[in-house]
Amino acid sequence: MPDPVDPLATSRAMWDGDAASRALGMELLDLGPGTAEVAMTVRDDMVNGHAIAHGGLVATLADSAFALACNSRGRVTVAAGFDVTFLEAGRLGDRLVARARETALRGRSGLYDVSVSRAADGVVIAELRGRSRTLPPPKE
Amino acid sequence: MPDPVDPLATSRAMWDGDAASRALGMELLDLGPGTAEVAMTVRDDMVNGHAIAHGGLVATLADSAFALACNSRGRVTVAAGFDVTFLEAGRLGDRLVARARETALRGRSGLYDVSVSRAADGVVIAELRGRSRTLPPPKE
Amino acid sequence: MPDPVDPLATSRAMWDGDAASRALGMELLDLGPGTAEVAMTVRDDMVNGHAIAHGGLVATLADSAFALACNSRGRVTVAAGFDVTFLEAGRLGDRLVARARETALRGRSGLYDVSVSRAADGVVIAELRGRSRTLPPPKE
Amino acid sequence: MPDPVDPLATSRAMWDGDAASRALGMELLDLGPGTAEVAMTVRDDMVNGHAIAHGGLVATLADSAFALACNSRGRVTVAAGFDVTFLEAGRLGDRLVARARETALRGRSGLYDVSVSRAADGVVIAELRGRSRTLPPPKE
Repeated sequence: MPDPVDPLATSRAMWDGDAASRALGMELLDLGPGTAEVAMTVRDDMVNGHAIAHGGLVATLADSAFALACNSRGRVTVAAGFDVTFLEAGRLGDRLVARARETALRGRSGLYDVSVSRAADGVVIAELRGRSRTLPPPKE
Repeated sequence: MPDPVDPLATSRAMWDGDAASRALGMELLDLGPGTAEVAMTVRDDMVNGHAIAHGGLVATLADSAFALACNSRGRVTVAAGFDVTFLEAGRLGDRLVARARETALRGRSGLYDVSVSRAADGVVIAELRGRSRTLPPPKE
Repeated sequence: MPDPVDPLATSRAMWDGDAASRALGMELLDLGPGTAEVAMTVRDDMVNGHAIAHGGLVATLADSAFALACNSRGRVTVAAGFDVTFLEAGRLGDRLVARARETALRGRSGLYDVSVSRAADGVVIAELRGRSRTLPPPKE
Repeated sequence: MPDPVDPLATSRAMWDGDAASRALGMELLDLGPGTAEVAMTVRDDMVNGHAIAHGGLVATLADSAFALACNSRGRVTVAAGFDVTFLEAGRLGDRLVARARETALRGRSGLYDVSVSRAADGVVIAELRGRSRTLPPPKE
């Protein structure tokens, strides 16, 4: 159960139970109010025949950072959807870092922007904009 | 090298080399001009702590169907980006089917809509709209 | 006040009060449960210097059809946002027709797809996907 | 013809010919490399029956700022599409300011983010993300 005195507890509990992100080798680098930073290295089970990262998995990395950021306010929040633009190909062996930040939060609706960059040179390879929806508090 | 007499050869060659989709257990069910159907079962390394499929992986399934559909015209085509809306949670053990169809193709730009549904009851759990860009033919 | 026996009354009342759509010369052609059809002719105050319709106004036409469609269930509903892709230029004098249909409706969230085509030849010039949110009923 | 020594000339020429933005009373406040700022006041021919600005017209304001920003590099560039999220209603009489900035530019593809805020209190009422495509130079 989330710690009422620590708003980041919701994100931390979510991350601890996130088998999918763990199976993809993701590391949580940083977490703050409305922000999160997650890294992933492109493995050989994440690429297509041309040694290029599957776009869906690049989006999955960004989506994990988005989920952490939108749950960092202490209320359980789900992704309603996202839009992603691919700017460059990720390649086998690239370490990728996704940085999420809160662009807007109004009532129970939020908008989060996530940039995915290559750790080696800092070049942004994808931009994701996520739409979140906070769940109503459980009835007592 | 794609067979010039079979426009679907580009998609088939792409699928054969797609280690990422294979690692996620995806199966190609159907492929036609501008269309593709791909299935995936939600495994325990694809869920979070609440036995709910990671949204990024649901999008990855839809993205694979989109990639097959937009390469089915015999020209190498890449995803420029996509927008996805999550309608229902996918759950551990659910067999999901993504069906992609071409909504528009103008010159080198395409728009593809993908519905992801649960095989058990046919309920649509996500809608993805993908934007594609065909690469210029290689210079001789 | 909407007629409780006619679910389309919410859309009709909205349209009657919509000064913006009227000022742009829009005509309501058809309205049904989850669908709407609206026409607009590209005037000389809707184009740029190259006699091409302002993309924002093409989106405005589609947004009006979206608003009518998502209010056609008898509950007051607002647009949370939309994504639009421009496929062809609209031109001065073109009569454009926007056709909206419901792609998904789950609880208070809806997804509507709108195609904008030229009346003269039926060619689709834009595709919009709208996200709607039904307001909670007013408290008594 | 654009002045080769002034990259902003493409945007300025476009703005001078933009009858649609002028008819909506838009004012160009600022223009720079990759940025633009445009204002518009919500008139009574821009609202619906509840004195709320038509979302399409709020998007049109943002789209005008996006068009100016993406043409500010001296090359003729068109909008391929955009995604917009509505955060608050614009109201009759509100002066709205749209600020566009370049988020990414790779080859001929660009990504621009536009925030629309109320001048009175600075509150952001909409966020638009535009996708641009630079046209190939005319053949000689």
